[in-house]
Amino acid sequence: MSAPATAAKPAFRLTDSTLRDGSHAVAHQYTEQQAIDIVAGLDRAGVPVIEVSHGDGLGGSSFNYGFSGTDEMKLISRAVETAKQAKIACLLLPGIGVADDLKAVKDAGVQVARIATHCTEADIAEQHIGMAKELGMEAVGFLMMAHMTSPDELLRQALIMQESGADVVYCVDSAGALTTKTVTERIETLVGGLDVPVGLHAHENLSLSVANSLTALDHGALHIDACTGGAGAGAGNCPTEVFVAVCDRMGVATGVDTMTMVDVAEEVVRPAMNRPQMVDRAALILGYAGVYGSFMLHSERAAKRYGVSQAQILIELGKRGVVGGQEDMIIDVALELAANK
Amino acid sequence: MSAPATAAKPAFRLTDSTLRDGSHAVAHQYTEQQAIDIVAGLDRAGVPVIEVSHGDGLGGSSFNYGFSGTDEMKLISRAVETAKQAKIACLLLPGIGVADDLKAVKDAGVQVARIATHCTEADIAEQHIGMAKELGMEAVGFLMMAHMTSPDELLRQALIMQESGADVVYCVDSAGALTTKTVTERIETLVGGLDVPVGLHAHENLSLSVANSLTALDHGALHIDACTGGAGAGAGNCPTEVFVAVCDRMGVATGVDTMTMVDVAEEVVRPAMNRPQMVDRAALILGYAGVYGSFMLHSERAAKRYGVSQAQILIELGKRGVVGGQEDMIIDVALELAANK
Repeated sequence: MSAPATAAKPAFRLTDSTLRDGSHAVAHQYTEQQAIDIVAGLDRAGVPVIEVSHGDGLGGSSFNYGFSGTDEMKLISRAVETAKQAKIACLLLPGIGVADDLKAVKDAGVQVARIATHCTEADIAEQHIGMAKELGMEAVGFLMMAHMTSPDELLRQALIMQESGADVVYCVDSAGALTTKTVTERIETLVGGLDVPVGLHAHENLSLSVANSLTALDHGALHIDACTGGAGAGAGNCPTEVFVAVCDRMGVATGVDTMTMVDVAEEVVRPAMNRPQMVDRAALILGYAGVYGSFMLHSERAAKRYGVSQAQILIELGKRGVVGGQEDMIIDVALELAANK
Repeated sequence: MSAPATAAKPAFRLTDSTLRDGSHAVAHQYTEQQAIDIVAGLDRAGVPVIEVSHGDGLGGSSFNYGFSGTDEMKLISRAVETAKQAKIACLLLPGIGVADDLKAVKDAGVQVARIATHCTEADIAEQHIGMAKELGMEAVGFLMMAHMTSPDELLRQALIMQESGADVVYCVDSAGALTTKTVTERIETLVGGLDVPVGLHAHENLSLSVANSLTALDHGALHIDACTGGAGAGAGNCPTEVFVAVCDRMGVATGVDTMTMVDVAEEVVRPAMNRPQMVDRAALILGYAGVYGSFMLHSERAAKRYGVSQAQILIELGKRGVVGGQEDMIIDVALELAANK
């Protein structure tokens, strides 16, 4: 806290995802001016990587995932033009985004391609990681819902990404269901088994995103994701400005100017948000049960229709390890709970 | 998460302070009906101790600390009448509350007297702890702003409380400035040096209240404070329902029914709050600088008057270890910063 944090070599690389994962908090309605203002602020604070895409990655603007208010290519172009030192990153989920999207963002000046799959489906990312490398981009592998598989299986999946050419592999706690203990197990296993650096992407459902990110650093992670103001779906993501301030207070060099970051959160990002980020019942139960956010609405309907507890439905779905696309299981579980009442 | 949390012997005793520290979030305007509803909910969930007083303790209703909307004795009486299993606790800061207040709440049915002083002024609590014991109450010592002194000095102060008769001594992170590392140092030192059990009272300014409370348990604390919905001044307190859910997920027995607790937060407490709890700039800077909340308004005025940064004023005050009552130092610091610009 005594010396400026920017003086020492950063202990990790920070990726701010306010303009990607944080866009869930504004239903993907960022304007070009907001993108410019947020990138300018983050860039000024010294954030080294800024992610910009639809909340569900390139090509996410759709009936299923919500239409973007402004075409993501426009937001990306404004970001690239605005950033003086920060690299711009994009997220791509194979199946939602396609190969041509990668080429388009490369041409627009994006330097980092983050390729995301469910934590047990890394093979789906092989082709896109390879393509990002061929395009001369940095390729980051992103293993989502990482609480749903064991540390050893997560490593096997991460190795697939590493072999495909990934320069970094992230453990992604999409449901905010990991605790300091389960983060430790996963990060230690990944760091021990990979040649490439490891990252953590934390959510706030159990109010542990800052602590989990610190824990990841303690166990060798070199990349951390965060969103300014904690912006994000439900409880939101690890709040960038808080994480930076805590690192600073603990003597962990961030490369980011804490007070500038705090001002960007308060004066630029928070006014752009539609609602405060909070760990309300829905968000907490998602983290506690360890299920997809997309199960929330379906389970609410099923709970009403069959007169059972939504929480119990979600907890049971979590126990069964139900994944996206298995929404029909929600009705099955609700019927079973109703029968057992 | 598999077996009901209520089945195993709790690993710690939970004190919910929504109706005391949480009252800062509603400017001490709880109604009798709100007190009844909140106590009924917490009691039903299995919370063993519920604290009820003005936010600044017995007798706090005043021009200085804010007037209570409803006399605290009325709220306390409703709480005592409503609780079926929970004990009702009160907080007293010697100087704000007086000896007669202790007698009055004992007569009203309060079983736990929590006596609070600044972390280096335990001797001020001796008489009141002794009186609580004479009255046949459980006496809890409460060492506030515990980040401002060393673990060893905190232990010396805790020993004074223990010798005065305290049944429990709390490390109180009033500014939300402790991290998992500094919590560990303090709790380990207290647990190692005291004969009585140790507690932690955590705030959310650095977004670490849940993690710090878990850390305290890991290092031998047996008492944890929390407020439902995270209610409290600024960023608020450790959120009861989140902490209970995380404990449950980690296999730490709480004695509290998680889902009931989550419902009480969502349906009873949050609707009574005036504003969402969030780690905004003011709250974060208080935790980062480690200063009193009461410095906020004064430092804002001084920053404007002398054209310097409020954050820098607060950080400098934190470095100098300025305590409540030294508000004149704020102007001195502002003048120095202005001169050095």
